[in-house]
Amino acid sequence: MRLAVIAGDGIGPEVVTEGLKVLGGVVPDLETTEYDLGATRWQRTGELLPDSVLDELRGHDAILLGAIGDPGVPPGILERGLLLRLRFELDHHVNLRPAKLYDGVRSPLAEPGPIDMLCVREGTEGPYVGNGGVLRRDTPHEVATEVSLNTAFGVERVVRYAFERATARPRRHLTLIHKTNVLTHAGSLWSRTVEEVGAEFPEVTVAYQHVDAASMFFITDPGRYDVIVTDNLFGDIVTDVAAAVTGGIGLAASGNLDASGTHPGMFEPVHGSAPDIAGQGVADPTATVLSVALLLEHLGLGDQARKVNAAVAFDLSTRDPQQPVRTTEVGDRLAALAGG
Amino acid sequence: MRLAVIAGDGIGPEVVTEGLKVLGGVVPDLETTEYDLGATRWQRTGELLPDSVLDELRGHDAILLGAIGDPGVPPGILERGLLLRLRFELDHHVNLRPAKLYDGVRSPLAEPGPIDMLCVREGTEGPYVGNGGVLRRDTPHEVATEVSLNTAFGVERVVRYAFERATARPRRHLTLIHKTNVLTHAGSLWSRTVEEVGAEFPEVTVAYQHVDAASMFFITDPGRYDVIVTDNLFGDIVTDVAAAVTGGIGLAASGNLDASGTHPGMFEPVHGSAPDIAGQGVADPTATVLSVALLLEHLGLGDQARKVNAAVAFDLSTRDPQQPVRTTEVGDRLAALAGG
Ligand SMILES: CC(C)[C@H](C(=O)O)[C@@H](O)C(=O)O
Ligand SMILES: CC(C)[C@H](C(=O)O)[C@@H](O)C(=O)O
Repeated sequence: MRLAVIAGDGIGPEVVTEGLKVLGGVVPDLETTEYDLGATRWQRTGELLPDSVLDELRGHDAILLGAIGDPGVPPGILERGLLLRLRFELDHHVNLRPAKLYDGVRSPLAEPGPIDMLCVREGTEGPYVGNGGVLRRDTPHEVATEVSLNTAFGVERVVRYAFERATARPRRHLTLIHKTNVLTHAGSLWSRTVEEVGAEFPEVTVAYQHVDAASMFFITDPGRYDVIVTDNLFGDIVTDVAAAVTGGIGLAASGNLDASGTHPGMFEPVHGSAPDIAGQGVADPTATVLSVALLLEHLGLGDQARKVNAAVAFDLSTRDPQQPVRTTEVGDRLAALAGG
Repeated sequence: MRLAVIAGDGIGPEVVTEGLKVLGGVVPDLETTEYDLGATRWQRTGELLPDSVLDELRGHDAILLGAIGDPGVPPGILERGLLLRLRFELDHHVNLRPAKLYDGVRSPLAEPGPIDMLCVREGTEGPYVGNGGVLRRDTPHEVATEVSLNTAFGVERVVRYAFERATARPRRHLTLIHKTNVLTHAGSLWSRTVEEVGAEFPEVTVAYQHVDAASMFFITDPGRYDVIVTDNLFGDIVTDVAAAVTGGIGLAASGNLDASGTHPGMFEPVHGSAPDIAGQGVADPTATVLSVALLLEHLGLGDQARKVNAAVAFDLSTRDPQQPVRTTEVGDRLAALAGG
């Protein structure tokens, strides 16, 4: 396996080290190449994602990313110039975000019940395309627009991926989240696509919810969800709600996938670079390790993925919540459990 | 006070009756005119909001709305043809949604702490303007767009309103919620406007959060928020999250205001028409009564508003959660408490 590693900023390198420890334990032929991208590089050289680096990244089987960001970088620069650019250049139209409440993990909900959902967020369209503009900036007549672009091609492929995931899960249930009563143009395309693709998956039951109602049900009744499919912006929001109710972004994993397999997927914990705790060895690498499991699964290494997931589940169920997290200890435990 | 009443569908008439009971108890000179709008009228006549009715509504001091909607009406018809049309025609640029966790109310959060926030959602711009379209419908080349329109005029007035509310509250804190790192055009307008208007309110501290992070903090640390200002779509989502953590939309009130006072405000519970429990006398009218308090406050009847709010707070703190709600009993109690 040829893996590109973008450790990034803040706690990124620390959690990635543990992710690689676990990955190396289950994939003997792991070859890694490190790429220095992120806030530090931008601050030093002004470079975000040189074309030559992008080309090299394309030659790998997958990319593991730690975290990108630093308070010293103006907001938006790294997001658009690096993170989103990677998603768009590598056609990461599936942004995969499981949200599972593990035994031993405290939910902020009083009665969470079992939660085990898989959010399939579109990653290359919607309001994220950067389309829009400003007229008469800094005058009382300024107008600023943002255009959400949605194509049959783009919606169909992510909806299809979501149905494929749903049909492989025991509950076989898919919920479309949108705001079809207000965003009627895009909403209609999404609804029709779910209906059409759904006809090929008669075994999957389908539900629809408006994004506002869904955000509420994620809190009052999260157990009702199995697979979710939604657009880029709604997905950004609801996956953070899902992460919050399942114990926080400290545990949330994600995969940015090109479902066609043409481009390598990029796997990353949802949390940021957490500069306040960087370098102290106290960052929890669990989200990175869960992202490694998504990576393995995407590359068809289902057995290895299951081992890593089982290691995390066991470790979380036996952790003493009073004990502070030590990054390397968690990594050591998970590597031993997964590789053993 | 000349009040237009749109009782609407489902439980709408039941909760409005109780709202009027409470309002009548604190406003002796109340004159009401009922307007038959909603699913039933549309199904009978095909009419949503005749121009003559709209003209008459404009002549009132305020509008009280129960709930609109019926499963027999295709989604979007009543929302766009009636609810949103009213907001746009009456220039309801402030969509006011308090979220307070009352004593005696169960939050789905294990440790909610005190929650008392006031969401100021923009109501006449953003992705709600209906701008967008579809190209090559029902072909593999279909493209659907949604355009979010944001104007300096529109953003400034709602941001100003939010600062005015913040400065009148003990904590004097305002949080802007947006997604400035991705929606850079609109995000920049919102950020610059908050900065500029904020200079006139040096006593108000200002925070900014991305909508995804905020949706998480609403769950993990809702007590940090005081006043919130946000765009139409983000406001739709985060106010439902806020409602969920403070006990559900059964208690959530809202006011749609033209802060300039040119057009009458419209006050409505956030919940829907709940056809499943309509006609049984078990709908909780509390959200409607809290909307009546917003109405009173907006019309400058602060003393009466405080009485109604105090009645609700007292009643909620003394309700037996085992006892089912009886619509008229709750209304009688609240009317007696507020009017006494
Ligand atoms: C950093 C930001 C651009 C990104 C997004 O909005 O997609 C993040 O919030 C995420 O969810 O991965
Ligand atoms: C009914 C719908 C159009 C409306 C909205 O999206 O604003 C509702 O969700 C609300 O929040 O009042």
